[in-house]
Amino acid sequence: MTFKTSATITQFGGKLLKLSHDSTTTHTPMDVNVFIPSSGDKIPVLVYLSGLTCTPNNATEKSFFQYFASKYGFALVFPDTSPRGANIAGEDDSYDFGSGAGFYVDATQDPWNRNYNMYSYVHKELLTELAKEFKQLDFTNIGITGHSMGGMGALTGFLSQPGKYKSVSAFAPISNPSVVPWGEKNFGNYLGANKDDWYKYDPTHLIKKYTHENQPSILIHQGLSDDFYEGQLKPENFVAASKEVGYKGGVDLNLVEGYDHSYFFISSFVEEHAKHHAKYLGLTK
Amino acid sequence: MTFKTSATITQFGGKLLKLSHDSTTTHTPMDVNVFIPSSGDKIPVLVYLSGLTCTPNNATEKSFFQYFASKYGFALVFPDTSPRGANIAGEDDSYDFGSGAGFYVDATQDPWNRNYNMYSYVHKELLTELAKEFKQLDFTNIGITGHSMGGMGALTGFLSQPGKYKSVSAFAPISNPSVVPWGEKNFGNYLGANKDDWYKYDPTHLIKKYTHENQPSILIHQGLSDDFYEGQLKPENFVAASKEVGYKGGVDLNLVEGYDHSYFFISSFVEEHAKHHAKYLGLTK
Repeated sequence: MTFKTSATITQFGGKLLKLSHDSTTTHTPMDVNVFIPSSGDKIPVLVYLSGLTCTPNNATEKSFFQYFASKYGFALVFPDTSPRGANIAGEDDSYDFGSGAGFYVDATQDPWNRNYNMYSYVHKELLTELAKEFKQLDFTNIGITGHSMGGMGALTGFLSQPGKYKSVSAFAPISNPSVVPWGEKNFGNYLGANKDDWYKYDPTHLIKKYTHENQPSILIHQGLSDDFYEGQLKPENFVAASKEVGYKGGVDLNLVEGYDHSYFFISSFVEEHAKHHAKYLGLTK
Repeated sequence: MTFKTSATITQFGGKLLKLSHDSTTTHTPMDVNVFIPSSGDKIPVLVYLSGLTCTPNNATEKSFFQYFASKYGFALVFPDTSPRGANIAGEDDSYDFGSGAGFYVDATQDPWNRNYNMYSYVHKELLTELAKEFKQLDFTNIGITGHSMGGMGALTGFLSQPGKYKSVSAFAPISNPSVVPWGEKNFGNYLGANKDDWYKYDPTHLIKKYTHENQPSILIHQGLSDDFYEGQLKPENFVAASKEVGYKGGVDLNLVEGYDHSYFFISSFVEEHAKHHAKYLGLTK
């Protein structure tokens, strides 16, 4: 088995697996958690991309996605947010760059470009390896979601690989990274100064060029008491771009009063996101 | 206000409050988390007592009880598991005694008896103070539950104060502490060598003397892959005692295949426990 299993935990009638494997894309060991509901084969899969600082465990412990995955019958994949232990100078100096902050891009700049290839790791290597290992999961019937940096990663993954993901949603995503401090810091370091290279990972730019026929509704929740909302997240820019280009499914942006940026916010809307994905993955009428 | 509020967090349409107050029972500051669903007054209350090592935050973040509290319309109270910072020699030496391990007893032995009075703290001072502060909560309509040490605390609190709690349940409770290592260590240190003093806090002994007319079903879940099941928990002893005395509501012990002792186990059965309490608290038909 490509994956080593450090824990097999029973939850909600399914199995939560804590796995690790040696990635040929990041050249580091990578952790990933997978939840498989009890029943069946051809089980659809929802990928959840976490936000800054998170390991696969945060969402696994705090999102409560497994409850709804079990109810609807889809599997969950919780990747890590960056390589760990790549031994690059400066890697662990700040919470919002380097370890825990891979930004789901393929770095082009030295010294990051050998390891920090989270775009190819998540969307290609990881899913390919999981598909080989878990034959009961149907990796042709998958959705993607995520939080903050991971919300950006979900939108980016959906828009830049047309048809790969049948459904997409995001919790408080970094919606227009090219124009906010988090994006400038990370894209600048990982991708260099040429902004054309940034736009390949910017949902607000990507949706303007999206022409594939698969245009499901894009569900987004954004808390109005989220300290990062105005300065870092800017979901309205994404909505405006979607309207400009006439994205057919529309962006269903829900601004929710009182909610912050934490897992207390995420868990409050996981039910709606689970229903959203279940519909597009053929699990509900 | 008796309580200081360190955080007010919106979740599931309700408010999660992280509070602290100076306890006259433990002579220390005490943290407590309270979840209040959005609506109404005369809101019933469910007290959740945590297990060894936990603060109020573990269950708050990982149990998912708030989802069902919001759905059914009851409030939640998550007390701490011991005084903190009492400055008693040995207090922090082990995970299963002292800090994080108050065992929900009133200590009689020096040096623990000044601070380690978690029985009176939880069942009396804390609920009395919360009732003064939160007028919309109905502290005459309350239930109690808990995990492991806290499951023991819930059963003990219910059985030793007849009529106070309308409903009771437990997740993997220490059901007969007088005959297991955790109980012997803690009861010995807090209560002394006389086992008659231990029985006041031992559910298996308490149920044998319980004659009050309020005899609701006692719901218990116990994982069969729980490493503490046979050596420390012994729910069958409690069931046997309930049958011996003819406890009317019966003990509904569910032995569940594959589940461990963690919050992944707890969260898997929170829905059933929430339904159980909602029924006795008059929230369902």
